[in-house]
Amino acid sequence: MDNHISDHTTIVSDAALKTAQSVDKDRQWSRLMQLAEIGAIPGGGVNRQSLSTEDRQARALLVRWALARGFEPSVDDFGNLYVRRSGRNPEAPPILTGSHLDSQPSGGRFDGAYGVMAALEVLEALSDSNVETEHPVELVVWTNEEGSRFAPGAMGSMVFTGKVSPQQWLDVTDDEGTTLSQALMETLDALPGLPRRPFGFPVHAYIEAHIEQGPILEAEHLSIGVVTSIQGVRWFTVTVIGETAHAGTTPLRLRKDALQDALAAIQALNTFMNDSTDVLRFTIGRLVLEPNSHNSVSALCRFTIDLRHPDPSVLRAKGDAIEGICIDAMRACTVQVTQNLELPCVAFPEAIVDAVQTSAQALVIGHRRMPSGAFHDASFLATHCPSGMIFVPCAKGLSHNVAESISPEDAAIGTQVLAATIVELSRAINLNPAVILDK
Amino acid sequence: MDNHISDHTTIVSDAALKTAQSVDKDRQWSRLMQLAEIGAIPGGGVNRQSLSTEDRQARALLVRWALARGFEPSVDDFGNLYVRRSGRNPEAPPILTGSHLDSQPSGGRFDGAYGVMAALEVLEALSDSNVETEHPVELVVWTNEEGSRFAPGAMGSMVFTGKVSPQQWLDVTDDEGTTLSQALMETLDALPGLPRRPFGFPVHAYIEAHIEQGPILEAEHLSIGVVTSIQGVRWFTVTVIGETAHAGTTPLRLRKDALQDALAAIQALNTFMNDSTDVLRFTIGRLVLEPNSHNSVSALCRFTIDLRHPDPSVLRAKGDAIEGICIDAMRACTVQVTQNLELPCVAFPEAIVDAVQTSAQALVIGHRRMPSGAFHDASFLATHCPSGMIFVPCAKGLSHNVAESISPEDAAIGTQVLAATIVELSRAINLNPAVILDK
Repeated sequence: MDNHISDHTTIVSDAALKTAQSVDKDRQWSRLMQLAEIGAIPGGGVNRQSLSTEDRQARALLVRWALARGFEPSVDDFGNLYVRRSGRNPEAPPILTGSHLDSQPSGGRFDGAYGVMAALEVLEALSDSNVETEHPVELVVWTNEEGSRFAPGAMGSMVFTGKVSPQQWLDVTDDEGTTLSQALMETLDALPGLPRRPFGFPVHAYIEAHIEQGPILEAEHLSIGVVTSIQGVRWFTVTVIGETAHAGTTPLRLRKDALQDALAAIQALNTFMNDSTDVLRFTIGRLVLEPNSHNSVSALCRFTIDLRHPDPSVLRAKGDAIEGICIDAMRACTVQVTQNLELPCVAFPEAIVDAVQTSAQALVIGHRRMPSGAFHDASFLATHCPSGMIFVPCAKGLSHNVAESISPEDAAIGTQVLAATIVELSRAINLNPAVILDK
Repeated sequence: MDNHISDHTTIVSDAALKTAQSVDKDRQWSRLMQLAEIGAIPGGGVNRQSLSTEDRQARALLVRWALARGFEPSVDDFGNLYVRRSGRNPEAPPILTGSHLDSQPSGGRFDGAYGVMAALEVLEALSDSNVETEHPVELVVWTNEEGSRFAPGAMGSMVFTGKVSPQQWLDVTDDEGTTLSQALMETLDALPGLPRRPFGFPVHAYIEAHIEQGPILEAEHLSIGVVTSIQGVRWFTVTVIGETAHAGTTPLRLRKDALQDALAAIQALNTFMNDSTDVLRFTIGRLVLEPNSHNSVSALCRFTIDLRHPDPSVLRAKGDAIEGICIDAMRACTVQVTQNLELPCVAFPEAIVDAVQTSAQALVIGHRRMPSGAFHDASFLATHCPSGMIFVPCAKGLSHNVAESISPEDAAIGTQVLAATIVELSRAINLNPAVILDK
């Protein structure tokens, strides 16, 4: 262990320690590897997109594991899947813990899957250690977190928390023209007989374990990230409209080359977004050309901007300037800028953050407080109930990548902290809600 | 008429003048419009890609028109289609004239199609005026000039002239996985019973009429471009290899963002290729990203370079520098540069250029000598026989674009010059071959 461990003596309940000690590293890892076979792709990754055949297979496997241990699966009308372990007080609102089973098309084995398997392992560890919690503890699988097949992402948690009506998305189609409503119906039909839950039922607390998807914990040799906040996100689409022409005949001064004007805009944006503290995240992840032909000047260039920052005032100022910078950068073309997504900065309540940190301290695990760079289902749950997150390190910070990798040891340590945190939160009566910054 | 017309008295044969006067503007335009219905797409363009159903329909229509007038269609094993009008000496090598019927996916109605319809109109005008040429005159349709469905372009003329063996391309596939050999077989089977011609038969001269695909003739209010040369072309593919990562979590200093390094390379290339005379053509027409996802740093960026210049030494120097400039521009990624195509600069023989210019002068048509910015099937025919080209103006210089447009009058004027040139060339005995610069 290293010097990041607190030397303050901290106390959690015996039940919390007992449950954490019952976490079975090999059982959890074996399940993660079984799950990774569903939708496996070359390079060690998975392609298990939302509401696909593979997603249904993963859900069915989870339900089999749950039923084998006597836990109670249920589902809501948007396909969010729950697995309940009862508590002492059946009327008490549950503590929810989980994440998602869907992946990017060329995704890794742990993004989302780890949080679901950690939740299942907590339920088993509670049973193995005969701990009775005051509140029921429920595993949850949120539908379509990734948004790669049906955009946008985090649909399940947005619907559960009432941010968006499910009707708004039923007609969204994937690239093959399948509607979300069709894929959802097939997913619900594949697990018949499950009790139906309402959206937005009361929740005592929500805790999501997840891989960091960044390089910090690995670089600092720490096993746990105590997540304090989730940075805000704004997504934009920039469309530069020029005019196609023949590459061999058209003098450069007469061209309206959409790619070249888009590059000028990106250059100007790169300069404007430059941040010596390297906190701001500015990414051009998608770019398409039309006609995209070797010997044709581009008539259209469309690119996306993913902008994130933990400070809402910075996020607002930087995002609001994008349109003007793009317009100013045009030389021969015109440009349109639209915003597709805006998620506010979220600060998790101290009661939750403290519970996670105290658990890590009690278990003598190297940890640090940190913001989340990625958004998660917890971004939305935070608007509904006291929420928090626990990060475990992933190799080189790689995620959304077939090479995504975590160690069995870190996976088990994260689940120990999750287990202890859940037992401690079940003892707590008043938990403050999240702070939504700049909502 | 305007002051670009030569005031020297010029003489062509009565047969040449008579044939030119027999060109029927309305008949030719009506055929161009009928042809444009095959593969018509919104905006007035066509999608008639090589060896497609639409290409077969266009070929069948041409053969019906030819047979109705008693001309003799034939074909070679690569699908190059010929229509012969006999001459006085059946043993004499034919004068070939034509172009291509295939289009870009979002192409115009006249690129290629004009040269084929002009050739048919010349055959009809010769018959209407009862002119007997010494040499047979043959219309030719070259297979797959565009290269948009099966890359590269100009396959038919390359195979005919022996530059490439057809076996080299039989396994090339389109985006749907159809092989060229399959599409070629279906195309040949769709016109059964046509006599088969060998590749590379002797040709007295090749003259191709084509739209300019550039803005110069229109800007100068001239109806005819007397093409003196075709500038050289080099095509490159640049592949920048980075590493994907999560857009929200990965600090910019730790990224290997393939798009950003590709942009740095393009900026450096833009600077290096800058030409105050605006003669050099430097185009990035295709650019693709992987994974091309809104919230993922790019693992790969692949873009193409289309580089053209009439001076072989400039083309060599600029092209050879590309790899080094790309390597020097990389910040975190690696890069590979490959050359896909290299066509030398071609100078057409004076005998052909003069025949075109003399015909335009005799017909009192505004014209100018000019190089071709685009490459054409004539680039390859020039290595096989004395060759030349005639340009007609197109609106705003637009080509490879549904808005491509020419006037019925200019179309007829171009065909008049083509007809007179062909009759004159049939009287000539010695024609010098093309000069291939820097072969």
